[in-house]
Parts: sequence; structure tokens; C-alpha cells
Amino acid sequence: MQNLNQFQETFESYLRENEFVNTPKELYEPANYILSLGGKRLRPAVLLAGHYLFDDHVEDSLPAAFAVEVFHNFSLVHDDIMDAAPLRRGKPTVHIKFGLNAGILSGDVMLVHAYEALSKTKSPRLLDLIKSFNRMAIQVCQGQQMDMNFETQIVVTIPSYLKMIELKTAVLVACALEIGALIGGAPKEDARGLYEFGRNLGLAFQLQDDILDAFGDPKKFGKKPGGDIAQNKKTFLYLKALEVAPTELAERLAALFSSEAKDEAEKIDAVLEIYNQLDIKNLTEKTKEEYWQNSLQALKSVNAHQDRKLLLERFATALMNRDF
Amino acid sequence: MQNLNQFQETFESYLRENEFVNTPKELYEPANYILSLGGKRLRPAVLLAGHYLFDDHVEDSLPAAFAVEVFHNFSLVHDDIMDAAPLRRGKPTVHIKFGLNAGILSGDVMLVHAYEALSKTKSPRLLDLIKSFNRMAIQVCQGQQMDMNFETQIVVTIPSYLKMIELKTAVLVACALEIGALIGGAPKEDARGLYEFGRNLGLAFQLQDDILDAFGDPKKFGKKPGGDIAQNKKTFLYLKALEVAPTELAERLAALFSSEAKDEAEKIDAVLEIYNQLDIKNLTEKTKEEYWQNSLQALKSVNAHQDRKLLLERFATALMNRDF
Repeated sequence: MQNLNQFQETFESYLRENEFVNTPKELYEPANYILSLGGKRLRPAVLLAGHYLFDDHVEDSLPAAFAVEVFHNFSLVHDDIMDAAPLRRGKPTVHIKFGLNAGILSGDVMLVHAYEALSKTKSPRLLDLIKSFNRMAIQVCQGQQMDMNFETQIVVTIPSYLKMIELKTAVLVACALEIGALIGGAPKEDARGLYEFGRNLGLAFQLQDDILDAFGDPKKFGKKPGGDIAQNKKTFLYLKALEVAPTELAERLAALFSSEAKDEAEKIDAVLEIYNQLDIKNLTEKTKEEYWQNSLQALKSVNAHQDRKLLLERFATALMNRDF
Repeated sequence: MQNLNQFQETFESYLRENEFVNTPKELYEPANYILSLGGKRLRPAVLLAGHYLFDDHVEDSLPAAFAVEVFHNFSLVHDDIMDAAPLRRGKPTVHIKFGLNAGILSGDVMLVHAYEALSKTKSPRLLDLIKSFNRMAIQVCQGQQMDMNFETQIVVTIPSYLKMIELKTAVLVACALEIGALIGGAPKEDARGLYEFGRNLGLAFQLQDDILDAFGDPKKFGKKPGGDIAQNKKTFLYLKALEVAPTELAERLAALFSSEAKDEAEKIDAVLEIYNQLDIKNLTEKTKEEYWQNSLQALKSVNAHQDRKLLLERFATALMNRDF
């Protein structure tokens, strides 16, 4: 029996064999660079796992898995420009290493190559795949715009925050699973069930990320906690705290988030103290747990081999229990 | 009988009816803005004309025409960022009006919406359309990269310049015609013939543009000539001059192009004098004429209504004889 590690490895080999060799090299070097920075290849791995629920020939889904990973990396390159991020996975971001123009244009061509790879899929349902991909790609852009809007927006509601992370993060996981299932021959409603599994898992995953950023063990998390707080990022934790805090405390929290801190560590401590006082970690975990249960429920509804579903469930459980 | 003006008008109405109404508005305002700046809608118009060669129901090609125009405008938005251009059609460029991030992200979403519109086409050959579009979109990015490379490249050959304008400009016209023909039910070889017509026409058109930029009548051309010279742009004129000039003159020309001019008008005059001395206008027109003849030849090879082919030929002739 396959496990998800094997899917990750299968994909990694395929990716290495399919490095861009096109010209001009100035256009493709940045693309190969960002793709070589690694990452867990979660999206292509779950795409292959989605296929495997219904069919053994997961290799038929490799071009689509490539499309999803290349799309993800396109969005990282452009997001890093928009966020003025200097580092990605501990290495210089594309626009820092190769320049702004290279970041824009190599991102563009990656987006097109994602479509090209997807279009190579041998499947009678290719048009359904492309339509699912179109919808996802539009939503990811919309989510990124919402995220940018939040930076200057004074009031951000929790529902709109959840909508943002759904669009920016969750739908890509959902779409990957749906596409894999469709290529594997899943009935429409099962492909849709897997989409729902992925969407809810993606939401739970992002909430977990918010929690770890504030409360993660620095030894395991690999960076010191409080990055989101330092950047005044309106995460679920922050918005929940504003919601449940008495007026005065809410005002203090908002004031802490409204300016650059003189002493960053002091600011992070002050915010974490407020979070602790309001039990924000548990409140966030409660919402996370709801999405997690929804995702398990959606997976349960899918008609497929029990042991292959277990593979996905175990993988999702490992993701949710990570403390890194 | 239809004429190309009617196709332009038909498309213009369709475009107005299909303004983006999606949210967040910060994402779609820049897209509607650039699309509203006008332009001659040449690419969608020739797409409809390509369809009309084989079939009356050109309305079936409207979503594809929309895709081509939205793609073209996506590339304008991102190119204007890369070229640091302040103005487009006399109005502020998107990144100047809405900011860099809006320019990047609204460009991205326009590229995806181009695919979405194309995917809506009702045609048994939809996959062929998407594949043609993929190839074109990749080539346009490659052409833009070549163009950027030329800025810092010391030696640019004429063949590589022609390759650059083929990729950056001509293949989009070619692809538009091919897609229209395919939707209209053209046999593959006729669709390919139209592609060749468009590719050669696009090349001739760009050479015409190079000529007009240096020798256009300022009253008709709408801007004073010499913009390419002022920007040290390595156009066909410049590269041809370097090729045919005796060593000393070539060195003087290269020197004029290697620095910012103290007196711009003086520099333009000096370069134009060299061009005149070397008969560069005629030499460029000779190459342009070759492409123009190739394009007519390609059109001749297409099996379609003679009077409808005449429509395209007249339109192309008008394009080539423009002095504005």
C-alpha cells in the first residue's frame, strides 16, 4: 500500500525530470529556483492521493499535480513581491535574487505553464479539470486582494477573515483533491466530497498556522513566535480577541496593533498576555476543531476504498497535530 | 456584408456588457480601467473575422475574442510595470493610478479570466483552442523577456530582433485568427494558414511601427517622432543601420545609443541623419514588404469565401498603409 510520503517522492522525481529547460534562461531560472526551494509538496501529494482513492494509475495525474505545484509557486513569487518579503524558506525571494521584473514575468509564465501542464492530462474530463482550476485561480487572486485590503481596513470581521483564508489557501487544497479524484474517475459527487474535505482541511490548517505563529514551540517551529503580531497581522487570534475582550482591553489591543513597536519583544509579550487572559488559543482551537470535524465528515461521505481513505485521514491528522 | 468595423463594434458592445462586476472591487477596478482605455480592438476583431471566413455565427466566438483582448490588456499592465511606463493611451498606467500591487494582482486575475472566458466557448475543438492559447501566452512572455534582455545586451542580431517581435507581438494576432477559424469550423490546414497570415502581418505591422516612430508625420502620428531613439531602443532601424554602416559611422551610432543625451532633440536629429544617409527607411520597408507579401500569400492559400477573404485583406492593407 502506498503512503503519502511515497506520493511526495513520486512527485519530487517528476518535478526534477520536468525542470524548465526553455529559453530565454532569464525567464526560467527564477521558476526553477523557486521550485527547487523545496516545501512539502502537499498540494501535488494530496492530488495524487485523491486520484488513488479511485484508481491505481496515479501517474496519469502527474501533469496535473505539476500544474498545481507550479501554480502554488507562481502565487508565492507574486505574493512575496506584494508583501515585500525578503526571504522564502530561508532563502532570498525571487524578486530579491533576480529583480522585480524577473519576479513578475517568471511568475506570469509559470501561471501559463500550469495551464499547459494541466492541458496535457489524458482524461475525458479535461474540461472539467480546467474549469475547476479556473475557478480556483480566480479565488486565490481574490483572497490575496482581501488579505491586502485587511492591512488598511479598520474593521475586519471574523467571517470575512475566514472567507479570505478560504480563498487564499483552502481552495487550492480542495481543487487539488477534486482534480485528482476526477482524473481517477470518481463520480461527480465524490469529487465534490473530496473538495469539501480539502476546503475544510485547508481552513483548519490555516487556523493551526495562526495558533503556531503565536504559541508554537520556537525549538520545533523553527522561528521565534509572534511574527504575525510584530507585523500587525489581523489573524483569527487578533480578531477573536477583539470580539470577546471588554472595551478597554480591546482598545489596548487595537492600539498595540496600530503602530510600529519601539520594543518588538515587549509588544509581542503584551499581546500574548492579552490572548492568554482571554483564552484565545482555546477559542481558536475550537473553531479549528469545527473545520476539522467537517473535513472528516466530508471524507466519510466519499465512496472509496476504506483503507485508501484512511491514508488521507492519517495524513490530515498528522498535518493537524504538527507543532512545527 | 460585414466589414471589420462592424466586428470592432460588435466586440465593443460585448465588452461593455461583460465588464467585471466581481469582488473585491480593488482587484477588478484596475482591470475595467485598462479595458476602458480603448484601443482599436484589433485582436478580437480579426478573431471574429477569422471565424466569419468559415461561418456566419460569429457571436459564438465572442468569449474567445474577449479572452484575447483581456490577455492583451493583462500583458500591457505587466509590461508597463516592467518598462516603468507612466502613460498608456495618454492616461496613467495601472500601476501609477492604482499602485504596484494592484497592477501585479489585477494583471494576474485578468490572465486567469482570459482562460475562463476561452473555456466558455461552445466548440467541439475547445481543447485545441486552449492549447493554441497556451503556446501563444508562453511565447508572449518569452518575447517580453527577450525585449528586456536586449536593453542590456551589447550585440543584438537582426534575426533575434525579428524573433522577439514575432513572440511579443505577432503570435497573438496569429493565435486570434487561428482560434476564430477553429471555432468557425475551418479545416486544420486553413486555420494554420490564417495563423501564418496573422504571424507575418504582425511582423510587418511591428516593422511599420518602428518606421513610424522614427519617420511618422507628427501631425498624424500623434506624438513627436524619435521616442525609440530617445530611449535607446534597439529597433530594426537601429540594428539595420549598425549592419550596413561603415565601421566609423556604426561606432558613432552605437555611441549615440549608449548614453543619456544632454540634448534629446539634437540626438534624435543626429540619429535620423545617419538613418537617412544609410537609406534605413527603405531597407526596413523592404523587409516589411517581404512579410506583407508572405502574409498575403498565406491568406491566398486559405480555402474560404473570396469576398470574406477580401474583407481581411482590405483591413490588413489599411493597417499597413496607415501613417499614424
